[in-house]
Amino acid sequence: MKNKPRELKFWGWGYADETVAEDEVGEAIQHVCGKLGIKPPPAAAIPELSDIVLSAPRVAVPGPLQKLCSVHPRDRVSHTYGKSFADYARTLQRNFRPAPDVVAYPETEQQLVDSLDWATQARLAVVPFGAGSSVVGGIEHEDHDSERGRLTIDLRKLDQVLEVDKTSRAARIQAGIFGPALDAALKPHGLTLRHFPQSYEFSTLGGWIATRSGGHYATLYTHIDDFVENLRTVTPSGTLESRRLPGSGAGPSPDRLMIGSEGILGVITEAWMRLQDRPTFRAGTAVQFDDFHKAAEAVRAISQAGLFPSNCRLVDADEAAMSGAGDGSAHLVVLGFESADHQVGPWMECALECARDHGGRVPEESGDEGHRSGAAGRWRNAFMRMPYYREAVISRGIIQDTFETSTTWDRFAEFHANVKSAAEDAIRRVTGNTGLVTCRFTHTYPDGPAPYFTFHALSDVRVMLDQWREIKQAASEALMANGGTITHHHAVGRDHRPWYDSQRPDLFADALAAAKRQLDPDGLLNPGVLIDADHLDQRAKRVEL
Amino acid sequence: MKNKPRELKFWGWGYADETVAEDEVGEAIQHVCGKLGIKPPPAAAIPELSDIVLSAPRVAVPGPLQKLCSVHPRDRVSHTYGKSFADYARTLQRNFRPAPDVVAYPETEQQLVDSLDWATQARLAVVPFGAGSSVVGGIEHEDHDSERGRLTIDLRKLDQVLEVDKTSRAARIQAGIFGPALDAALKPHGLTLRHFPQSYEFSTLGGWIATRSGGHYATLYTHIDDFVENLRTVTPSGTLESRRLPGSGAGPSPDRLMIGSEGILGVITEAWMRLQDRPTFRAGTAVQFDDFHKAAEAVRAISQAGLFPSNCRLVDADEAAMSGAGDGSAHLVVLGFESADHQVGPWMECALECARDHGGRVPEESGDEGHRSGAAGRWRNAFMRMPYYREAVISRGIIQDTFETSTTWDRFAEFHANVKSAAEDAIRRVTGNTGLVTCRFTHTYPDGPAPYFTFHALSDVRVMLDQWREIKQAASEALMANGGTITHHHAVGRDHRPWYDSQRPDLFADALAAAKRQLDPDGLLNPGVLIDADHLDQRAKRVEL
Repeated sequence: MKNKPRELKFWGWGYADETVAEDEVGEAIQHVCGKLGIKPPPAAAIPELSDIVLSAPRVAVPGPLQKLCSVHPRDRVSHTYGKSFADYARTLQRNFRPAPDVVAYPETEQQLVDSLDWATQARLAVVPFGAGSSVVGGIEHEDHDSERGRLTIDLRKLDQVLEVDKTSRAARIQAGIFGPALDAALKPHGLTLRHFPQSYEFSTLGGWIATRSGGHYATLYTHIDDFVENLRTVTPSGTLESRRLPGSGAGPSPDRLMIGSEGILGVITEAWMRLQDRPTFRAGTAVQFDDFHKAAEAVRAISQAGLFPSNCRLVDADEAAMSGAGDGSAHLVVLGFESADHQVGPWMECALECARDHGGRVPEESGDEGHRSGAAGRWRNAFMRMPYYREAVISRGIIQDTFETSTTWDRFAEFHANVKSAAEDAIRRVTGNTGLVTCRFTHTYPDGPAPYFTFHALSDVRVMLDQWREIKQAASEALMANGGTITHHHAVGRDHRPWYDSQRPDLFADALAAAKRQLDPDGLLNPGVLIDADHLDQRAKRVEL
Repeated sequence: MKNKPRELKFWGWGYADETVAEDEVGEAIQHVCGKLGIKPPPAAAIPELSDIVLSAPRVAVPGPLQKLCSVHPRDRVSHTYGKSFADYARTLQRNFRPAPDVVAYPETEQQLVDSLDWATQARLAVVPFGAGSSVVGGIEHEDHDSERGRLTIDLRKLDQVLEVDKTSRAARIQAGIFGPALDAALKPHGLTLRHFPQSYEFSTLGGWIATRSGGHYATLYTHIDDFVENLRTVTPSGTLESRRLPGSGAGPSPDRLMIGSEGILGVITEAWMRLQDRPTFRAGTAVQFDDFHKAAEAVRAISQAGLFPSNCRLVDADEAAMSGAGDGSAHLVVLGFESADHQVGPWMECALECARDHGGRVPEESGDEGHRSGAAGRWRNAFMRMPYYREAVISRGIIQDTFETSTTWDRFAEFHANVKSAAEDAIRRVTGNTGLVTCRFTHTYPDGPAPYFTFHALSDVRVMLDQWREIKQAASEALMANGGTITHHHAVGRDHRPWYDSQRPDLFADALAAAKRQLDPDGLLNPGVLIDADHLDQRAKRVEL
C-alpha cells in the first residue's frame, strides 16, 4: 500500500510520532490527583504493538483492492477502538478482540464503492471510520460473530475541499478531512466552518455529520446538522446525493435521515457545508456566581433573550477548579460574542445585564480579548488539551469519563440533583471511594440546557472496566428516568444502545430498520450500532405473540 | 353528528357565514386589473351547494363511528379541495369528483384511532385534513380509483392547548388548532408561537408541521421545523411519541422524518412546541432600491451579518405596486427587528448600514412602529387580505397564482432571470396575453434566498385550468433546471409530484417508501402524495430490467 497516512496512536490521543511533554502530562496528573485528594498512583505500562495478539485475518483481500487495503497489525490495532474510557481500559488489558481483519483506505469514491461491493460478495461487516475518536463504541466491530470477516473503511484519504462558493459562503468538502486541515483550506478564502468539538484535531467532517457532532456554538448552531447544505452518501444499494439548497420544504429532509445515522445507512463521502466569515469582532468574559442554580437561571435568561452568544457555558465550581479555570469558590458562566460584521458590545451588554440580574459578578477584565485570557481562556485551553492527558490518567487506575445530555428548563434543577447524586452514589458503591462528579453546559437552548457531566473516581486498572460499566449504567438510567436524552452530541454507538432503544419511539425504530434494509439489504454497515440487523424479524415476532 | 364546527366556504377563503365587504373586494379587483391594464371582466357565478352533483357515498359508516362522521354534501364538498388556483378553477366548473365519501371529526385521539381501524378494515383511502388551505393538492382524494372508499379526517376538534411550560417557553398543543385560537390561548401566558404563514387564519398546527410551513421569521427560524420539541403521531401501525427535548443527537431525528411527511406516514395529533416571549421592542422600515440585484445583494449582506432580523424581505417594484406598498418605481427591502428583551436599535442600525452600502434609500419614518405603518405596513396588510380576494379575481378569468423556491446566492441572478422569463414566455404563449410575473423573498438564508413568484394573466374561465397547467409546468421546469427546490414551504402534495420525484434522491424515495410500508402497511394514508403506493414494487421491477 502506497502513501501510508500518518499513523495515529492506538493506545491514546493524537499521532503516534507526536509526544506530549512529560512535564505537561505530569502537571495534569498532579492536578487531577490533587482534586481527588490522592497521590498519583503508579502508571500501568502502555502496550507495545508486539504485546498484542491478533487473530489471523478471516478474509483475503482480492487482488484489485490490495493497493488500498492493509492487513498490517499496526493498522488493525489502530482501527480497533475509539477513545472512550472502555477503549483505554481494554487497551491496557491488551484486549484487541474486536480488531478488523482489513483496513481499506480508499482514495476515490469508486474505490469506496469497490470496497462495499467486495463486502457484499464476502458478506463482511463494514465499519466506516473517520479519525477514530468515537467515545461511544461507534467504530468497533462486534466481537460475538467470530466467523464474519471485518472490514474497516478509513476515509481519511478523501480529504479535499473540492469547491468554494464565497458568495453563498459554502464549500463542497470530502468527508475524510480532519478539522485542522479543513480550517487551513478555508482560511485563504476568509471562511471557516467554525465547528470545534473537543475532538476537533482528530475527527472528520463525515464523522461529525454521521454522529450529529456538537461544536463551537453554544447557542443557535449547536449541532453540525444546521451547517449541512447537501450530502453525498454511498450505500450498498448505490449512491445518493441531495440537492444543494439553502432551505427546502419538499417532503421530509433527505439529509436529516443521514445526519446521525452513524454509518448504518451508508458512507457519507461529500457535503456542501455552510460556512461563516472569520470573526474579527469579539467579546468574552467569565461571570462568577455563588449559586449554581442562579447561574443556570442567568444562562436561561440569556438564551431566551435572542442574543445568540457563541459561548454561553455554565461551568460548576468543581469543574472550574478541575480544569484550572477557577479556584473552586465560584461557578462560572463563560460568555462570548463574535462577529465578522459588527462590534458586539451591545450584545454583550445585554447578556451581562441578564447575568447581573441573577447575582453574577462581572470581572473588570472583560473585553475584546477576554476569550483568550482570564478564566474563560484558561478553561478553553484546558478543554483543548484534556484529551492528551486522558490515557495517562486512566493508566493510573483513575476512572475518568463524561456523559452528556439535554433536558428542558422546567426539569433542570431536579434533573441535575438526581443525576449527579446517582453518579456519586454509584461511584461510592462500586469503587468504595468518593468520586468527583462535575457539571457544565456545553450548549444552551431557549427551552433547556445541554448538561455535560465529568466524573473521576479512584479505581484499579484490573477492575476499572467493570466498575466503570456499573457507574455508566447508573448514570444512564438516571438520565432516562429524569427526562434527558441518552446523548446530546456524543452519539449512540454500541455503548448507548440500551437507553437509546428505550428513548426512541418503537415505530421510529421500525421505520429506520425498514430504511436500512432498503439501503443496506445485506446488513453490512456497522452492525449493532443504532439498530439490530434482525430488528424487523424480532418486531414481527413480537407482533405475532 | 353533534357540535358541528363552523362551516368553511367550499368555494373560497374563510368561513361560509362571513362576507367580505363588496367595496373591499371591488377595490382589490380594480387594483389588479389596473396593473394588468385591463377592465375588470364579468365574474362567473360562484356555485351553490345545490349545483354540485356528488356520487353516492361508496361506504356506509359503522354504527359506533356515526356520531363523529358526516356524509352530508356540505361536509363532503367543503373537504374536496384546498385553496390552489386549480381548486378554484375546478370549483367554478362545478367539478367535485375527488370529494370524500365521509368526513370524520374525531374529538379524541381514540376516535382517530377508531377511524383508522375502520379505514384498515374497509381499505379506505384516508386524507388527514387540517383547515384545508393546501395550495398543492395535498388534501384531495385521488379520483382515478373510483371503487375505493374515501375518508377525510378533519382534525379541528383536537384543538386544545393542553399544557404550558412558561419556564422552558413551550406548550403541548393539539394538532387541529387554528392559528388565531392558538395565539389566543397562549396570550395570557405572555407567549406566542409567532408563526404567521399567509394561511394563518385557516391552517392548523398539524398542517404546518406536516407540510414544513414557512412562517413569520424571514431569517433563522424560517420553517416550523425548528419549533418542534416533540411529536405525537397516530399511524395505522400504532402511535409514536418522541421524547420532549431541547436538542438531541441520539440517532437520526424521529421528528424530522415526520416533519414534512404530508400525512403519508401518520396523523400528527400533538406536539410540544417552542414558543417566544411576546415582543415589546420593535423596529421596522422599508428601504428603497433602484436596482433589484443591488437590493438582493443588500439582503445577502444583512443575512450573512448574523443579525437575524425577523423581517428581511425583498419585494420587487412590480409586486410592491401590485400590493399597494409602492408605486412601482422602486424595489423594497422590508426590514424588521423585534425583541421581548432589549431595544433593537443597534441591530437595525447594522442592517441599515448594509442597505446603504448597496445603494438603499432609508426613509426617515423608520422607527418602532414602522412595521405597522408606511410601505412595510401597507405590504403586510395586503399580504394578510390577499387570500380573501382570490376567488373573486379568479372568477373573472384571471389566472392568479404563485410558486416559490430557494436557491443559493451564487446562482441567484441567473436563476431569477431564467425563471421569470420562463414564466412570462409561457403566459404569452399559452394565453396570448402578456402577464405580470413579480418576485419577492419570503425568507432569507446566509447561503441563499427563498424567492416567491406571483403571476397574473388574463384568461377565460372555460380554459383557464388547462392554461394554468401549462404555465405551472413551464415554471416548475425552470425551477428544477436552474437549481431550485420545487417548494420551499408550500409542500409537495399532488401538484408538485413530478418535480419532487426528480429532485429527491431515488434511494431516499426508496427509504421513505420502506418507512411508509412499515407504518402504513395497507397504504391508507394520502395515496399519491409524496410517493406512489407501489413505489417499491416499481423500483424492484426497474432493478430487474
